[in-house]
Amino acid sequence: MIGVFDSGVGGLTVLKALGEKLPDTDFIYLGDTARLPYGSKSPKTIRQYVEQNINYLIQQNVEAIVVACNSASSVLRAEDQWPVPVFNVIDPGADQACLRTNNLKIGVIGTRATVNADVYLKAIKKRNLQAQVFQQACPLLVPLVEEGWVEDPITNLVVFRYLNPLKEKGIDTLVMGCTHYPVLKNAFAKVMGPSVSLVDSAQSIAENLSQMVYRKKASAERVIRICATDLSPTFQQIATQLLTPLQFSSIESIDLTAEIVS
Amino acid sequence: MIGVFDSGVGGLTVLKALGEKLPDTDFIYLGDTARLPYGSKSPKTIRQYVEQNINYLIQQNVEAIVVACNSASSVLRAEDQWPVPVFNVIDPGADQACLRTNNLKIGVIGTRATVNADVYLKAIKKRNLQAQVFQQACPLLVPLVEEGWVEDPITNLVVFRYLNPLKEKGIDTLVMGCTHYPVLKNAFAKVMGPSVSLVDSAQSIAENLSQMVYRKKASAERVIRICATDLSPTFQQIATQLLTPLQFSSIESIDLTAEIVS
Repeated sequence: MIGVFDSGVGGLTVLKALGEKLPDTDFIYLGDTARLPYGSKSPKTIRQYVEQNINYLIQQNVEAIVVACNSASSVLRAEDQWPVPVFNVIDPGADQACLRTNNLKIGVIGTRATVNADVYLKAIKKRNLQAQVFQQACPLLVPLVEEGWVEDPITNLVVFRYLNPLKEKGIDTLVMGCTHYPVLKNAFAKVMGPSVSLVDSAQSIAENLSQMVYRKKASAERVIRICATDLSPTFQQIATQLLTPLQFSSIESIDLTAEIVS
Repeated sequence: MIGVFDSGVGGLTVLKALGEKLPDTDFIYLGDTARLPYGSKSPKTIRQYVEQNINYLIQQNVEAIVVACNSASSVLRAEDQWPVPVFNVIDPGADQACLRTNNLKIGVIGTRATVNADVYLKAIKKRNLQAQVFQQACPLLVPLVEEGWVEDPITNLVVFRYLNPLKEKGIDTLVMGCTHYPVLKNAFAKVMGPSVSLVDSAQSIAENLSQMVYRKKASAERVIRICATDLSPTFQQIATQLLTPLQFSSIESIDLTAEIVS
C-alpha cells in the first residue's frame, strides 16, 4: 500500500494520476483538512504537521509515502531518515522542467510557503546551473479553485495579474507548483500562449513511481482508503469529483491530535 | 485583563476597537494562525479549537473573553458554562442590525461556516420575528484582504458578484459578519449604495463592552500582549498595521498542542 497525503483535497489529483498508472496498488490518502491550508504557514509549523502525517501513515503499514503537497514537500530535508521511502513532488517537477526547457528560462508558481522556501529554484539549479528561474506566489488561486470559479472571467483576471510578469521574462516552461493548479491549466495556457510548456507535478510523480515496484495489493479488489482530519460533506463531494473515474473503498474521519497524545 | 481571540489577524480589528474604547484595560490577544482559517472547517473541529483557545486564555488569568471571530462564535452554545464571561460577536451585530433596519430586510455576509450555521439568521429572528434575513457566503474575501488587494478592481468585481443578489432583494442593512470585512467597507458601499447601512461587529462589541466594568489594569502602563500559534514575519507586520495607533507590549509564539498534552 502507498500512502499519499496533502493538506486538503489538492493531493487527490496526484492520487488519481497514481491510481491510474498503478492499477494493482492499494492506496491510503490522508487530507489534513482540519489544519489546511499549509501554504500560508511557517516552515516550523508545516514541518510539525508533516511529521504527524507521515507517522500516521506508517502506523497504517504503508510501504512508501508520496507527499502530494508542494508546501509540505518544501519542509522535507535530504538528511531525513524515515522507516519507508518518502517521495516529494518537487524533484519530479524539476526533472520535467529541465527536460522540457529550451531557452533555460523556467517559471514557477506556487503558494507563498513553496515560493518563499525556494524549493523549485534550488532543485532546478541543482540539475542545471545555467537555468534562470522566475518565481511567483499565487495565494488566491487555491481559494478560487475551492470556490469552483474555474472557467471564470474573474479567475482569468487574477491569473493574468500573477502570470503576465513571468510571460514578460520570456519563460518557455512553467511549473505548476501546487497540486490545485492543474485544474486551471486552460487559464494558464490562455495567458502564456501555446509556446510555453506547463509542467504538472502529479503527472511527473506518477510517471516516476510507475517505474518502481509498489504493485502489491492485499486483496483481490484494489483498496483506496480516503481519510480526512475534518470530514465535511464538501470534502466528500470534491473527493468524488476529483477522483472520478477512480472509486474509493472507504472515507474515514481521523484525529491526529488524539494520535499524538496517546 | 480581557482575552480576545480569532483564528488569525482579523480579530485585531476588534482588539483595536476595544482598546480604543477601554483605554485603561489590559488585553491579551490570541491568533490561532497555525490552524487558520476556521471558516471553511466543520463545527466539530472549530469547537475543539475554540475550547483550547478559551482554556489557554483562562490560564492567563483573564476576567472575560471576547470571541472576535464569527466562525468561532458560531459554535458557542447558550448552555456553555465557562469560568469567566465569554462574549461573541454575533449578538452585538444582530442588535445593531435590528436597531438600524427600517424595512426589516437584512443582509448577512460571512464565511461558509458562519453562513451555514445560520447564527445571524437565528440571532436576528430572536430579536424580531418579522425580519427577513438574506445570507451570502463570501469565501474569497478573506484571501483577497490577506493578499492586500483592498482598493482593487478585481476585488470590486468579486464583491459585486457576492453582493448584487442581496442588493436585488432590497435590503437596507448589511451585517459584515466576518472580522476581516470592515477593511472592504468602501467596496461594499460602492455596490450597495448610500441607502444601505453597514454593520461592523467590531464597533458593536466595543460599544457593548465599554458599558461593562472590565477596566482594571495590573500596572501603570497599559499592557497589550499579542500571541500567535504560528508567528510569521507577515503576522507581525499585519498586526502592527491593523492595531495602529495602538501599540502592543509584546508579541509571543505559543504552542496550544503542547498545552493540551501537559
